[in-house]
Amino acid sequence: MSIFEKLKFNAEGLIPTIVQEQSSGRVLMMAWMNEASLKKTLETGKTHFWSRSRKKFWMKGEESGHTQTVKDLAFDCDGDTLLIQVEQIGAACHEGYKSCFFRSAESAGESFRTTEKRLQTPEEIYGRK
Amino acid sequence: MSIFEKLKFNAEGLIPTIVQEQSSGRVLMMAWMNEASLKKTLETGKTHFWSRSRKKFWMKGEESGHTQTVKDLAFDCDGDTLLIQVEQIGAACHEGYKSCFFRSAESAGESFRTTEKRLQTPEEIYGRK
Repeated sequence: MSIFEKLKFNAEGLIPTIVQEQSSGRVLMMAWMNEASLKKTLETGKTHFWSRSRKKFWMKGEESGHTQTVKDLAFDCDGDTLLIQVEQIGAACHEGYKSCFFRSAESAGESFRTTEKRLQTPEEIYGRK
Repeated sequence: MSIFEKLKFNAEGLIPTIVQEQSSGRVLMMAWMNEASLKKTLETGKTHFWSRSRKKFWMKGEESGHTQTVKDLAFDCDGDTLLIQVEQIGAACHEGYKSCFFRSAESAGESFRTTEKRLQTPEEIYGRK
């Protein structure tokens, strides 16, 4: 049975996708896939997403070179979330951090702290705009 | 600055929340929080969610005893996804698996396999209905 028979895309045709670095277990990011971007991901072994803000199909790393090679693609009990294990080149976050989750709550959410070092500035990744 | 000044809830007032077991790095589940369930989570140190299907506020484990104690609560660069590190009691998945992500794609998505053992049946967790 194909995984597509088990998956449920939402009313916009999207499914939330968690990306985890296989070697470290670090959760890198969450992004959205549509059916076409999932098929492209399965075909090419590189993650592709759907940008809800830009309304655009994109390959992770197409500008930055920070691509993600798929090592495993899992789906949850309800079939409405994907979990992809990847090998990540460079920073997953467009702000230059390894993971997009670089800030954690303190004092029951009244404040927060930055939990990791920035690897590169956005200007270093994307060039000055 | 409060984390609430950085967070973006969607049009339905919800934010997707990834739950990861801190000790193993295993991603256990993805669920949705509203502002009230996030506040309750921060206050009590136990995860609370909003069920979109049941339209109900719930504490993870309230029926099963499989509660999650919060060890860290992070948010992503866009402020639209949470990542919570927890100590998980028992199975996170209502189907009795440690993680909801117990199936992985094979053959470019044409098939899939179960990747972990079931710890308990749903009947053992919730009783026969």
